[in-house]
Amino acid sequence: MAVIAMLGYGVVGSGVAELILKNRNKFKSRLDEELTISNILVRSVEKYKDSKYKELITNNIEDIFKKKVDIVVEAMGGLNPSYEYIKRALKMKKHVVTANKDLIAEYGHELLELAKENGVSIHFEASVGGGIPILKSMNECLVGNDIKSIRAILNGTTNFILSKMNHENMGYDEALKLAQDLGFAEANPESDVMGYDAARKLSILSTIAYNKRIYWKDMDIEGITNIDDRDFRYARTRGCSIKLLGISEDTGKDVFASVRPIIVKENSVLGRIEDEYNAILVEGDAVGDVLFTGKGAGMFPTASAVFADIADIIMHKEEESITFNDKKAEINKEWELQSEWLVRLKTHNRIEVIESITENFTSSYILASAATFDDDEVVAFIKSENEHNLNKYIENLRKREYIRSAKKILISKN
Amino acid sequence: MAVIAMLGYGVVGSGVAELILKNRNKFKSRLDEELTISNILVRSVEKYKDSKYKELITNNIEDIFKKKVDIVVEAMGGLNPSYEYIKRALKMKKHVVTANKDLIAEYGHELLELAKENGVSIHFEASVGGGIPILKSMNECLVGNDIKSIRAILNGTTNFILSKMNHENMGYDEALKLAQDLGFAEANPESDVMGYDAARKLSILSTIAYNKRIYWKDMDIEGITNIDDRDFRYARTRGCSIKLLGISEDTGKDVFASVRPIIVKENSVLGRIEDEYNAILVEGDAVGDVLFTGKGAGMFPTASAVFADIADIIMHKEEESITFNDKKAEINKEWELQSEWLVRLKTHNRIEVIESITENFTSSYILASAATFDDDEVVAFIKSENEHNLNKYIENLRKREYIRSAKKILISKN
Repeated sequence: MAVIAMLGYGVVGSGVAELILKNRNKFKSRLDEELTISNILVRSVEKYKDSKYKELITNNIEDIFKKKVDIVVEAMGGLNPSYEYIKRALKMKKHVVTANKDLIAEYGHELLELAKENGVSIHFEASVGGGIPILKSMNECLVGNDIKSIRAILNGTTNFILSKMNHENMGYDEALKLAQDLGFAEANPESDVMGYDAARKLSILSTIAYNKRIYWKDMDIEGITNIDDRDFRYARTRGCSIKLLGISEDTGKDVFASVRPIIVKENSVLGRIEDEYNAILVEGDAVGDVLFTGKGAGMFPTASAVFADIADIIMHKEEESITFNDKKAEINKEWELQSEWLVRLKTHNRIEVIESITENFTSSYILASAATFDDDEVVAFIKSENEHNLNKYIENLRKREYIRSAKKILISKN
Repeated sequence: MAVIAMLGYGVVGSGVAELILKNRNKFKSRLDEELTISNILVRSVEKYKDSKYKELITNNIEDIFKKKVDIVVEAMGGLNPSYEYIKRALKMKKHVVTANKDLIAEYGHELLELAKENGVSIHFEASVGGGIPILKSMNECLVGNDIKSIRAILNGTTNFILSKMNHENMGYDEALKLAQDLGFAEANPESDVMGYDAARKLSILSTIAYNKRIYWKDMDIEGITNIDDRDFRYARTRGCSIKLLGISEDTGKDVFASVRPIIVKENSVLGRIEDEYNAILVEGDAVGDVLFTGKGAGMFPTASAVFADIADIIMHKEEESITFNDKKAEINKEWELQSEWLVRLKTHNRIEVIESITENFTSSYILASAATFDDDEVVAFIKSENEHNLNKYIENLRKREYIRSAKKILISKN
């Protein structure tokens, strides 16, 4: 018998409970293993008085820990009190399964070490890419590879918003509201739209991939709140769309890691990922490019990954599964390759700015140059040796008060 | 120490040997496990006299079995003598890793049972999708799901040929020759171009997915040898391309399973998979659609999967990994859903055939009707309630000698 205690009974938690129920017979017949839920921790017991699990519902954490439990499933989210509860469970030699990317991005190493010390394991497949089996694939199936790079759409909410902005001409606010109405975005969408959620996931993926800690707060993180309909219009002139990408690359010397909106070809591998779907493109030195796509969030996709972790523990596949290095990598925040950029400069010196661009960048193309008083703007595609040079150039324009503000978006080659 | 014996040193075998060498240090430091190759079985020792593994090369199978070996890697392909060697290895309680889809499609159940009886395991991740981690993902990561359907591009050679025919206006023969020159297709391409290779892979995937044996010879299998430039031209009028798809679907009652060329939207998930890439779209009841894409063949992609299997065995993750049911499923060969088809009929009764089509199918569209003497042909898009009705209709035309030959290609809705 495998006894499972559940912390949290929201979208993910209730999905997990459903899958446990659904798969009970399969597990009994195939593995002769009975899956049982001991208790479910919630904030308000009252809310669940009509639930089919009502006898298991409790708001007292002691109910969870006083019973004989094999696996603790944490589906509460956030750092507190999840962090304390999970540490307590591991110390009591309970296996832990969590979908909590905030927690793993922050305390992954400590929790994995604590699990090891106590002879148990902590699994977190659902923390990245929802139902997409990416952590196990990368860690086990690509074990013969050195991972060179990761390029990924890791946040379904922002991908949904950007898809609507691109294909249905919605403004950012309108698309965000639709995402909220459909349950894709939270009331407070900050973590999604500012790129923090994607950065945490990229941090977990990259830390495992490169075996050194890629801490999300060390990355260059840019959200989608500044993207407007004109960016899409300019991107479209190149047959491109805009996606919020998490990109990391291990150069051996340092690691480039960044989450930012990027202009990608509409018909490229990542350009085609629409709406709430996630996609992770992993480049291994042996396998080449492998792409994983699926729903990155939602009740059952996420529960599917949590359930797989539970099954792994029951089938004793948990040993040595993942290492999470604590040694922080040097993170390079600037794109080092020669690339083209969409650059938009607000200015009162339109002509001078245009002259300066064409002088400084032999390969540049002035796309638009609006002359309205309020909104004087020079828009250009600029090819720069690297991001650093472009940043320095823009900084220089700013210092000379040629421009009031600047915005730049990398154009991906593929 | 983990001692590996290798059977075969062709493309896959030499890739595996390279990866073992490359990953030796990683395994030693992470797992304190030394990877060693005991011997490599080849047909002609002479051929490898300058190889860096020349002391390990042998053409005597007894050299393999007389040493203390933990894992036997079979990379010879074909049924004989692989089948006998693998059985012998399992009986001697050696773990086995193979990339051999012919063997697993034919003897999967027997070999898994034999492994179980002897307390060892047989792994075959590389047999489907090359470097794409599909078997483990489906079997372990989607374990909480009932798999509903699989739609996949499983043969890189034919996908390469079809890509060239579509995008570079090559004829079938020219594209095949290019594939052979580039090493994607074998001198005798029958197994690829007739669809047998894809059918064997679909059989392995589906047998695991639905937990009942989907035997490849029971499927409707159609290759790409009859596809010509006109099929592509007609498909293009719908914004479509042609792909050789393996499709299986578990209806609960029976299983539909088929490999055939299908007209798919150019911008659909599978329509976008080009050249030698493979893609597998798995639909689970909890996770929804998950797509896996990568190189389906080649030295290092395949070796990457073989190496992952070796690592699994070393890390003791091999128990209970895959079940391969022996109970054959009832396989439905005809597409049951209402769909549109591209139908091409060679006829001497052009007008009668056109009249008959418009009479019999209210929703039909005559696309072309060539009137040259040699090549009288009626081409139509026909919507039929199911494939059975369409087959009956065509059979009837044939009986009445209205047509000399018929060709039909399913048009996928997505």
